[in-house]
Amino acid sequence: MLKVTVWNENRHEQKNPVVRDIYPQGIHGTIADFLKTEGFDTRTATLDEPEHGLTDDVLNNTDVLVWWGHLAHSEVKDEIVQKVKERVLDGMGLIVLHSGHFSKIFKTLMGTSCDLKWREAGEKERIWVVSPSHPITEGLPEYIEIENEEMYGEHFDIPQPDELIFMSWFEGGEVFRSGCTYKRGNGKVFYFRPGHETYPTYHHKQVQRVIINAVKWAKPVKRERPVYGNAKPLEEIKGGK
Amino acid sequence: MLKVTVWNENRHEQKNPVVRDIYPQGIHGTIADFLKTEGFDTRTATLDEPEHGLTDDVLNNTDVLVWWGHLAHSEVKDEIVQKVKERVLDGMGLIVLHSGHFSKIFKTLMGTSCDLKWREAGEKERIWVVSPSHPITEGLPEYIEIENEEMYGEHFDIPQPDELIFMSWFEGGEVFRSGCTYKRGNGKVFYFRPGHETYPTYHHKQVQRVIINAVKWAKPVKRERPVYGNAKPLEEIKGGK
Amino acid sequence: MLKVTVWNENRHEQKNPVVRDIYPQGIHGTIADFLKTEGFDTRTATLDEPEHGLTDDVLNNTDVLVWWGHLAHSEVKDEIVQKVKERVLDGMGLIVLHSGHFSKIFKTLMGTSCDLKWREAGEKERIWVVSPSHPITEGLPEYIEIENEEMYGEHFDIPQPDELIFMSWFEGGEVFRSGCTYKRGNGKVFYFRPGHETYPTYHHKQVQRVIINAVKWAKPVKRERPVYGNAKPLEEIKGGK
Amino acid sequence: MLKVTVWNENRHEQKNPVVRDIYPQGIHGTIADFLKTEGFDTRTATLDEPEHGLTDDVLNNTDVLVWWGHLAHSEVKDEIVQKVKERVLDGMGLIVLHSGHFSKIFKTLMGTSCDLKWREAGEKERIWVVSPSHPITEGLPEYIEIENEEMYGEHFDIPQPDELIFMSWFEGGEVFRSGCTYKRGNGKVFYFRPGHETYPTYHHKQVQRVIINAVKWAKPVKRERPVYGNAKPLEEIKGGK
Repeated sequence: MLKVTVWNENRHEQKNPVVRDIYPQGIHGTIADFLKTEGFDTRTATLDEPEHGLTDDVLNNTDVLVWWGHLAHSEVKDEIVQKVKERVLDGMGLIVLHSGHFSKIFKTLMGTSCDLKWREAGEKERIWVVSPSHPITEGLPEYIEIENEEMYGEHFDIPQPDELIFMSWFEGGEVFRSGCTYKRGNGKVFYFRPGHETYPTYHHKQVQRVIINAVKWAKPVKRERPVYGNAKPLEEIKGGK
Repeated sequence: MLKVTVWNENRHEQKNPVVRDIYPQGIHGTIADFLKTEGFDTRTATLDEPEHGLTDDVLNNTDVLVWWGHLAHSEVKDEIVQKVKERVLDGMGLIVLHSGHFSKIFKTLMGTSCDLKWREAGEKERIWVVSPSHPITEGLPEYIEIENEEMYGEHFDIPQPDELIFMSWFEGGEVFRSGCTYKRGNGKVFYFRPGHETYPTYHHKQVQRVIINAVKWAKPVKRERPVYGNAKPLEEIKGGK
Repeated sequence: MLKVTVWNENRHEQKNPVVRDIYPQGIHGTIADFLKTEGFDTRTATLDEPEHGLTDDVLNNTDVLVWWGHLAHSEVKDEIVQKVKERVLDGMGLIVLHSGHFSKIFKTLMGTSCDLKWREAGEKERIWVVSPSHPITEGLPEYIEIENEEMYGEHFDIPQPDELIFMSWFEGGEVFRSGCTYKRGNGKVFYFRPGHETYPTYHHKQVQRVIINAVKWAKPVKRERPVYGNAKPLEEIKGGK
Repeated sequence: MLKVTVWNENRHEQKNPVVRDIYPQGIHGTIADFLKTEGFDTRTATLDEPEHGLTDDVLNNTDVLVWWGHLAHSEVKDEIVQKVKERVLDGMGLIVLHSGHFSKIFKTLMGTSCDLKWREAGEKERIWVVSPSHPITEGLPEYIEIENEEMYGEHFDIPQPDELIFMSWFEGGEVFRSGCTYKRGNGKVFYFRPGHETYPTYHHKQVQRVIINAVKWAKPVKRERPVYGNAKPLEEIKGGK
């Protein structure tokens, strides 16, 4: 059974009754619920727990980590970010949601600023599938329509995705690369755009479907990890000097 | 005229007479020489200069930066690495050579460990062109043969290259992705494998040709930089909330 | 001096006075004009000329071929398509415009149906730059706005582009991958979306800038072509059988 | 249960006792055996059956098609190739083995010549994993060693793979991109190099593991297929003309 940990900074939910009304158990609670229903062995972790809830034991027992953060990216400790990064390079899948584009973990895995345009106007977003053979699109229609969302617009300062799965249309005139896969070391990373805290985006069945599919796609590969460093020759070297 | 800065840690040349004999003016001196001959406005910078020779003035007047480092990656100051990174994201080209795979600047732009297998046995390397339409291959034969080189072997822990240009065959039985392009922000990055300090690799005409071609390819694009942050709508938003 | 041939089926211009008014010398005439002004050695060729104007002599003296077709894709002779394909694989650049997505030459180079959604409603198109380091974006603002265009919408059935340069937003709610690069053999291919015949799109300065940049980018690499077939070993084989 | 069809031209087995000794039930029989053992619903089809064994009924009931051909590529009927292509674009996975690089189906899906260097000297091949997070590498060591194989060398005239999984080292001095994935329409394609008919390559457990993994990876996505053609607007168009 796949082991999933849903991490959330869990701050908007404490401060803003609008958010708390939409997500009474926190964004992490809602996400964990539909992942459990899908049959994954799911737990949650939040910023204010010791070690942000991401102890060695938790990380070593996580196949796929889901990440939501926004207000408090800078409060996430560098040593925890470093541990998460090492786990990704070791094979753990990572699903970065919405404002997680600016999290330390995403930026350090991308190597770019991860900056973008944004606007909170509750406008319509239409998320189009552009890679119809990809397992992350299983069960989805041609597009996902979200009635009210924050806008994220290009240029999105990310490396060219290994695979571009979704592209968003926004009512206000922008477009965005909304579903992007990357490989890093032995691990797989998926960025998925929607999910502003003041809208019920994670209650949307098709958004849930994407996250469920992404968890399956991101699971670690079972094999010995590559060996690095000094290596004896596998064949005789004749003319070496 | 393209402005090129060749950066070298310049330590092997001080310590090891073998290296000094091959590169009497330092690895940077040899590389700068053939770049000047090609008509680029070329200067050099080294680790032990103030700010490692990479002052704001130098960086702001550099179109393409060539980087060679090995022994002293850890001595490169984080604030200089950060400035170089910002210049790359702003458009400066970056050519990372050989052991530069473990430099701070390459690792932070890649987001991975950049680790690999290696062996100093002076074995034969044959660098095959696999992307024959790429301008970095201009003027090259089907492969470049280097009689004696250090081996670098897979797995090379880098993100999937945007373009894979060269693949190496090694006498001892390994292969390696030897020429890799990446885009980062407004800048372009090229990693090129050969160049162990105890062999005369940078005197090899075809190796020089690759670096010259890469400098031309990596030059900045002339246009306004993207604007990030809060954005007014370009179209009327009807149903927003 | 780069040698460019602009190919056009040149049928709408004969049948439809609206098109003839916008392009009195044909779409090919307008495109050739701004390419000449840029300094390219430019000629035109059209469907109704012998061999569609693409004789061996013309093709062998073309560095980059620009292609516009729509009504009469099926009238383009298979043997001419085959010759163009061989020239692309040999190094000639190919710029495919708008409805050329359904041309025989584009489909045979892509291997897919190249199908898409479309609508002629004269709606607004906004073409966003998503690869700001790419030379095809030189001199461009963040987006190109076209007041009236035909809509092309996803899913666009193409292989994943080697590089995605532009993404379009359409007033009617769709998005599209509008600028896509591919490498095929020794040649480079660029698909660029806008250019419906009843709108003055190729008089738009920024659209012209994209095509000029693309011609420069697509020029052939100067080197010996790869050798295929039976190959003698470069190293001694010990245990072969 | 995944439905797999293994297609083989099955000619070498009829003509050459060496091949018949290695593969008494044909190459297809050996491949089908280990796929059945893995639990796939597996059948075989060969060139000399009516419609090459690839009737509409067979194709419509195939999730993943495995293809081995060599001597008789030209005997495969164009209309069958066209049907296979349409099934791939509709979602069927396709695994192309070894000399299948020159099959009509692979060439039409790639859009290039698919040419390469080759040599039959029974030399050693070492197939290195370069994408350790990819499910096709599950259960594999760092490299697969094959004592005697035909050599295939670069330049391999294919489009840049979406994902490069394996790279081969050959005793005679060449390298090759040995494991390449592509997406085409709703389907996934994997090319895997080894498998010359006079060596027992498909009895090699790790080679079998790659093919098993590839079948799993290539299975169709369950969703409605994209709709193409004329499309009504999803949003009101104001200024259209």
